[in-house]
Amino acid sequence: MSDIKRLDSGPRMSQSVAHGGLVWLAGQVGTAGDNVTEQTKTILAKIDSLLERSGTDKSKLLQATIWLESMDDFAEMNAVWDAWVDPANPPARACGESRLATPEFKVEIIVVAAA
Amino acid sequence: MSDIKRLDSGPRMSQSVAHGGLVWLAGQVGTAGDNVTEQTKTILAKIDSLLERSGTDKSKLLQATIWLESMDDFAEMNAVWDAWVDPANPPARACGESRLATPEFKVEIIVVAAA
Amino acid sequence: MSDIKRLDSGPRMSQSVAHGGLVWLAGQVGTAGDNVTEQTKTILAKIDSLLERSGTDKSKLLQATIWLESMDDFAEMNAVWDAWVDPANPPARACGESRLATPEFKVEIIVVAAA
Repeated sequence: MSDIKRLDSGPRMSQSVAHGGLVWLAGQVGTAGDNVTEQTKTILAKIDSLLERSGTDKSKLLQATIWLESMDDFAEMNAVWDAWVDPANPPARACGESRLATPEFKVEIIVVAAA
Repeated sequence: MSDIKRLDSGPRMSQSVAHGGLVWLAGQVGTAGDNVTEQTKTILAKIDSLLERSGTDKSKLLQATIWLESMDDFAEMNAVWDAWVDPANPPARACGESRLATPEFKVEIIVVAAA
Repeated sequence: MSDIKRLDSGPRMSQSVAHGGLVWLAGQVGTAGDNVTEQTKTILAKIDSLLERSGTDKSKLLQATIWLESMDDFAEMNAVWDAWVDPANPPARACGESRLATPEFKVEIIVVAAA
């Protein structure tokens, strides 16, 4: 008997998988063609929505992994991140450079939260 | 007293580490020189085996992180992934581009599963 | 009511987040300008310190993710890693290439440990 709860499952992945007090989200991306600020805002709004539907919120983030298509966008992404993150409850975080599924995706964020 | 159970531990890493209802696998790679399809099949067979030996299976995957040496191989890797993943129970997933330990490794997959 | 305990929290991230028997550390980097050996030693000393302050130690590592600015540094990083890791209790590990926040950072290591 499994106590795993998934949201928005397709044939390839689920967007949220909850188990044993943890919520694992799929890597979230923005809209191809948007700039870094817009993509980051879209990603964080998707994360807020998925966390809410999973019964939690950004104050319970444990880990965030951020991939940038170019580290030249570090400051622009961070400006949006810093305005969004709960300043009393920030997660552990790491940020590296990685080309993403299409060149037009500039940012991808993967988070794990407490339920 | 620790309740951590490891499999295939060497001086550098373990291939599986189980603790508190979670199973963490090392990044799995295929056979250098094989093509992307073959490497992905080898990786997923290794994951199946490690999960089984850890008392779980792919229906309990929580998170998968996929690194491709070149995002040009995204579709070829996905064809093997899509045929393998449990369509009723897919994990959260993210895929980025990263050069791997040797240039002949084209794919690496890291998973976390529920025990 | 949250049982999440954070260390060294700033407006962007925490260096350690503990919850439900797991400790998640932020990606640790060394000192810009140092060589790979020195950066790796600094990173592992930071990890030791954060784990200790979180009530655990390297014998309880579950997962380590290592990013190298260049895979050419794989052997040099590994020499320091292999001398540091608890040979009786090594974690699951993955290592990929990723440019980091500044070009002078050659190594970044992200770990999750049992509490």
